[in-house]
Amino acid sequence: MAHKLLTLLSDFGLNDAYVGMMKGVIYQINPALTIVDLTHEVPPKNIAAAQFHLINAYPYFPAGSVHVAVVDPGVGGTRRAIALELTDGFLVGADNGLLTELARRRSILHAVELSNSRYWRSAELSATFHGRDIFAPVGAHLASGIAIQDLGTAIDPATLVELPIAAHKSTPTGYTGNIQHIDRFGNVITNIPGDAVRDKSWSIIVNRVTVPGCRVYGDVPAGKPLALIGSHGWIEIAVNGGDAHFQLRLNWTDSIKVAIEPQLIKA
Amino acid sequence: MAHKLLTLLSDFGLNDAYVGMMKGVIYQINPALTIVDLTHEVPPKNIAAAQFHLINAYPYFPAGSVHVAVVDPGVGGTRRAIALELTDGFLVGADNGLLTELARRRSILHAVELSNSRYWRSAELSATFHGRDIFAPVGAHLASGIAIQDLGTAIDPATLVELPIAAHKSTPTGYTGNIQHIDRFGNVITNIPGDAVRDKSWSIIVNRVTVPGCRVYGDVPAGKPLALIGSHGWIEIAVNGGDAHFQLRLNWTDSIKVAIEPQLIKA
Amino acid sequence: MAHKLLTLLSDFGLNDAYVGMMKGVIYQINPALTIVDLTHEVPPKNIAAAQFHLINAYPYFPAGSVHVAVVDPGVGGTRRAIALELTDGFLVGADNGLLTELARRRSILHAVELSNSRYWRSAELSATFHGRDIFAPVGAHLASGIAIQDLGTAIDPATLVELPIAAHKSTPTGYTGNIQHIDRFGNVITNIPGDAVRDKSWSIIVNRVTVPGCRVYGDVPAGKPLALIGSHGWIEIAVNGGDAHFQLRLNWTDSIKVAIEPQLIKA
Repeated sequence: MAHKLLTLLSDFGLNDAYVGMMKGVIYQINPALTIVDLTHEVPPKNIAAAQFHLINAYPYFPAGSVHVAVVDPGVGGTRRAIALELTDGFLVGADNGLLTELARRRSILHAVELSNSRYWRSAELSATFHGRDIFAPVGAHLASGIAIQDLGTAIDPATLVELPIAAHKSTPTGYTGNIQHIDRFGNVITNIPGDAVRDKSWSIIVNRVTVPGCRVYGDVPAGKPLALIGSHGWIEIAVNGGDAHFQLRLNWTDSIKVAIEPQLIKA
Repeated sequence: MAHKLLTLLSDFGLNDAYVGMMKGVIYQINPALTIVDLTHEVPPKNIAAAQFHLINAYPYFPAGSVHVAVVDPGVGGTRRAIALELTDGFLVGADNGLLTELARRRSILHAVELSNSRYWRSAELSATFHGRDIFAPVGAHLASGIAIQDLGTAIDPATLVELPIAAHKSTPTGYTGNIQHIDRFGNVITNIPGDAVRDKSWSIIVNRVTVPGCRVYGDVPAGKPLALIGSHGWIEIAVNGGDAHFQLRLNWTDSIKVAIEPQLIKA
Repeated sequence: MAHKLLTLLSDFGLNDAYVGMMKGVIYQINPALTIVDLTHEVPPKNIAAAQFHLINAYPYFPAGSVHVAVVDPGVGGTRRAIALELTDGFLVGADNGLLTELARRRSILHAVELSNSRYWRSAELSATFHGRDIFAPVGAHLASGIAIQDLGTAIDPATLVELPIAAHKSTPTGYTGNIQHIDRFGNVITNIPGDAVRDKSWSIIVNRVTVPGCRVYGDVPAGKPLALIGSHGWIEIAVNGGDAHFQLRLNWTDSIKVAIEPQLIKA
């Protein structure tokens, strides 16, 4: 029971005390829990961006961790509040697609709608902050050992709202895809998995520029663009010592092409 | 003693290591404490904004928590450093009004000026960072069980500097008030308590626009403005799926009018 | 072993989940550790700025704390990954100068290159995120009691990459120096140590303005500039209740002059 871990992910930002209040509620329930912030700077209401962070971070936490992810523009409406038990952890949040893709990749052992108000902060809810009133306390109870079945009614995982990551496509010469995320360094993360190019000779074409497929930033001179398999496992476009988003004038909607040179497969 | 909780609130921001240093000092005194950040992005020197966050967050923490709140433009001057014991928690900070309104609402059991340098980081103070040198260590000692009376000289709570929240006013048709806070979603929190409209039919007039009083964001179509009782208990102006601050072109100084329709009191 | 403390410092920002992932990796290794963020808003790739925060924050942490500092533009290249044992703590990061100045000031007991992949997250590294794959896990193992010698090969401290803080200079009438940091309040921290002016009568000349040397912000009227010994021990230029960076139109490259009035040494 000691040291059970709970992560928080939201679009609440850090300028307000919303995140602090969620932590207060968690510690009211169990002061021995450990809380880790994934990020709270998800752009407001951007469920896909939150999903990106959750999918990438999930594997780096201890088995059994509880992940409370709150980007919830439908709060107070008819969307369901849910908890999912996976093979190696728990997810808590709104049924708006944020949790589904990750859950399906790991396989879902149990899915419940959070209908049992006994595990909410109180039966009297705010209309606008279920992060504080439902998701944080339910997460704290889960991390404290309450069985997921006690939190509410079982639901069919097939009924979960879906928000699939846009798939990349095969072409005669390689792949096409799009931009999934741009991080603070200006590194541009695509939706093309690194496995598509691993151990091959490849390059990226974006915005009429051809960028060589490399292994590390230092494979090109400082200031030059490159592509590599990023730390998340996706193909990433970067500039050695610089900012690819800015320098290559990339837009979120730009199409990304991967060209594989089959004759040149690396030893 | 285990798991005693301390919150930190400041205008230090997160770009510098000031908050990290306060935590280091706290753990030097007692490594078993739990620390929660309320927010450190209070606009520099804005005591009223800090008070807003502290009043709203306070009820969501375990009884006995110690709240260290440092927005202290008078640091090094003649303002007093104080600690207050309330019925269900402790407040530590400068005597500049930040703590007073909250303390009076909860009733003050003990008030002391922090004159006992034994509980400071060292008797030799910096001139500019009493958060690190006085407030953090005093908070850590309080959370570790030191009696508040040991921290310095008792003072009369009636002498505390006041910074009252501007009161809303009754009118023949409802209430008038003003804007207390605008959060990252563009939700506009007024100084009119939700109890003024609970179970009534009401609307808000602001910037020549009439906004219906609702229960949840989804009571109006996406993109439309509404008002509701926010999660803090204050009347809040929002846009379903949007940003009321931006869309209604609201200014911090705008007057807010609440119109109650007495004939239409909801069942 | 209980409550061993680890600090994290980086240029990762808080918009992405990179910092959260590092914490997940740390708790996978030892869920009982305490983690403190120094700051993650170091400007991307700015090793000197990171060094400024680390040097200033280090003395405020418990002896034996492990400080993991990751500003690592050379990640994946030939730069060494290192750990240093000082008399009162541990440093972990890239051998790019970030750690050297602090380490030399405290004296280095052991220096190792992190060549033992047993203490990495896995032998298979990402090319771009050694914070997650090497530095965080090594820090967690150090904080858990693994001897530094087990982490890799001993190296000669004389071979560490250097990034010295620019030295201030003596002049016939005082000192000259430059700007080392500007904080969120617009306080301008110079590279001239406070000891140079302690107990003397002094003033600062910057941008053709003469600013009086004072003890606290309140020594001048609100809105007026002053200089004082800041909480870090460096001479700092401030405006009482205002923003010196903005009000004095200071630039990062401005030269700072300190004038000492020897006849007027304070009693």
